[in-house]
Amino acid sequence: MSDEQREETACEERTMTRRELFPLAGKVAIGAAGIAVVSSAGLAFGCGEEEAGNGAATGDEDAEMEHDWPWPYEKLDAAESAALAYTNWYEKFCCYAVASGILVPLQEKIGMPYTHFPVESTKWGHGGAVGWGTLCGTLTGAGIATGLIAGEEGEQILNDVINWYTVTELPTFKPAQPKAEITNSNRSDSPLCHISVGKWMAKENVKFFSDPRKERCARLSADVTTKTIELLNQWIDGTYKPAYPEQAKAHEVQMPAQNNCTECHGDAVPASPGM
Amino acid sequence: MSDEQREETACEERTMTRRELFPLAGKVAIGAAGIAVVSSAGLAFGCGEEEAGNGAATGDEDAEMEHDWPWPYEKLDAAESAALAYTNWYEKFCCYAVASGILVPLQEKIGMPYTHFPVESTKWGHGGAVGWGTLCGTLTGAGIATGLIAGEEGEQILNDVINWYTVTELPTFKPAQPKAEITNSNRSDSPLCHISVGKWMAKENVKFFSDPRKERCARLSADVTTKTIELLNQWIDGTYKPAYPEQAKAHEVQMPAQNNCTECHGDAVPASPGM
Repeated sequence: MSDEQREETACEERTMTRRELFPLAGKVAIGAAGIAVVSSAGLAFGCGEEEAGNGAATGDEDAEMEHDWPWPYEKLDAAESAALAYTNWYEKFCCYAVASGILVPLQEKIGMPYTHFPVESTKWGHGGAVGWGTLCGTLTGAGIATGLIAGEEGEQILNDVINWYTVTELPTFKPAQPKAEITNSNRSDSPLCHISVGKWMAKENVKFFSDPRKERCARLSADVTTKTIELLNQWIDGTYKPAYPEQAKAHEVQMPAQNNCTECHGDAVPASPGM
Repeated sequence: MSDEQREETACEERTMTRRELFPLAGKVAIGAAGIAVVSSAGLAFGCGEEEAGNGAATGDEDAEMEHDWPWPYEKLDAAESAALAYTNWYEKFCCYAVASGILVPLQEKIGMPYTHFPVESTKWGHGGAVGWGTLCGTLTGAGIATGLIAGEEGEQILNDVINWYTVTELPTFKPAQPKAEITNSNRSDSPLCHISVGKWMAKENVKFFSDPRKERCARLSADVTTKTIELLNQWIDGTYKPAYPEQAKAHEVQMPAQNNCTECHGDAVPASPGM
């Protein structure tokens, strides 16, 4: 079974779960096909709202940008960036690790406008936004980078990175000089820091404030950096094919949502393992 | 009862709920006092990990920044910024609305380095990150802005904005020329898009892809812009007093987490109202 088939099967299983969960929504035929691989580019993102004008209201037309946006992109070496992200996790954590793994090499290769952006300003994304356990900081870092590099097309890339994050056993990155040893990887089924790291902590049987947990998050940062760069490199080559439709529209609840519905809406969930 | 007292009481109630949920954690005495107002500044953020060096590893010391960071700040008019955020929601949604409500006026007042930053690049945060329902895009926008403006001190400001978001009945903003009428406000008890907007949709009895829901999110963007600017203005005046401790350390589970534990870990949660 290919990775693609595995993901389709996983999606089908999850769709069935949602059907059991939301029986009244059965008339909306979003089955496996609705979540399967979409090969055409140019999916419109934005929660289905119509945009009301040609440009954003700035309040002052004199406030012109110094550079065009999106910013220019040159293909990066994913392995080099992954190693940088791993190292940088130990400086300013997950969000900065991914943002710097992508943007610092572009500062070096391209210079301006990348050198105008203080990558350290992304540190706040750690711990799912200053420790609130929401969006995994690695994905916030990927969002900031893809937004600068690929503009609104970056939203499709980010969507695919998030989906990949939820269905893949992570981490897989092996550092040349690990700062700690870890044994396990796990599939999060969620882009939420709290759920993703919590499941891994339970499997590894470690606490959040432990060296193995830090090592897992550093390696995960390298993995997300690698995946994001792989898709950006395909995108600049013109070979990128979006893998998933827009979440808010494709999801059976027709609102912004994850795919792990039963994790909150099902039977009571065990207490978190971080205690 | 003052707002502060109300929040303390709310925290106490939530702490009791967590105690019931995590009885084994009873020896860790994080009660209402641990979550109450902290009046001293300078709380260290970063999930408790030690930072391993004086600066981040850039991979190349020649990649120098064009401007110092954090960026210079001048006090903003919160009401003007709120109106801009409301308008801009209808251009590129929640994350961009808040980021532009703060950063576009700074492009106008200060110019560079703000004019180097393409605020449109933040659009990806909509719908809790391209529709995944995670961190409310208004808070992602606040994070990006406070990270640029206040550096690591911005993390404490963001933490307080997130906490305020979870315990406040929102939206409260009244646009001069509303694009739709809405009746309700609600307390989210969560910074997650899916939970926050879902509770409001249930109360208002509307679907996600409806004009009233869009209006609620536009007004909410104005509210988050106002709150963030209020704290930034206090910060630049030297009168800002952090209100909450670091979430990952203060929370009883000692990991990145929200305060609405029972919402997922308690009895089965009703199906989302967006169907």
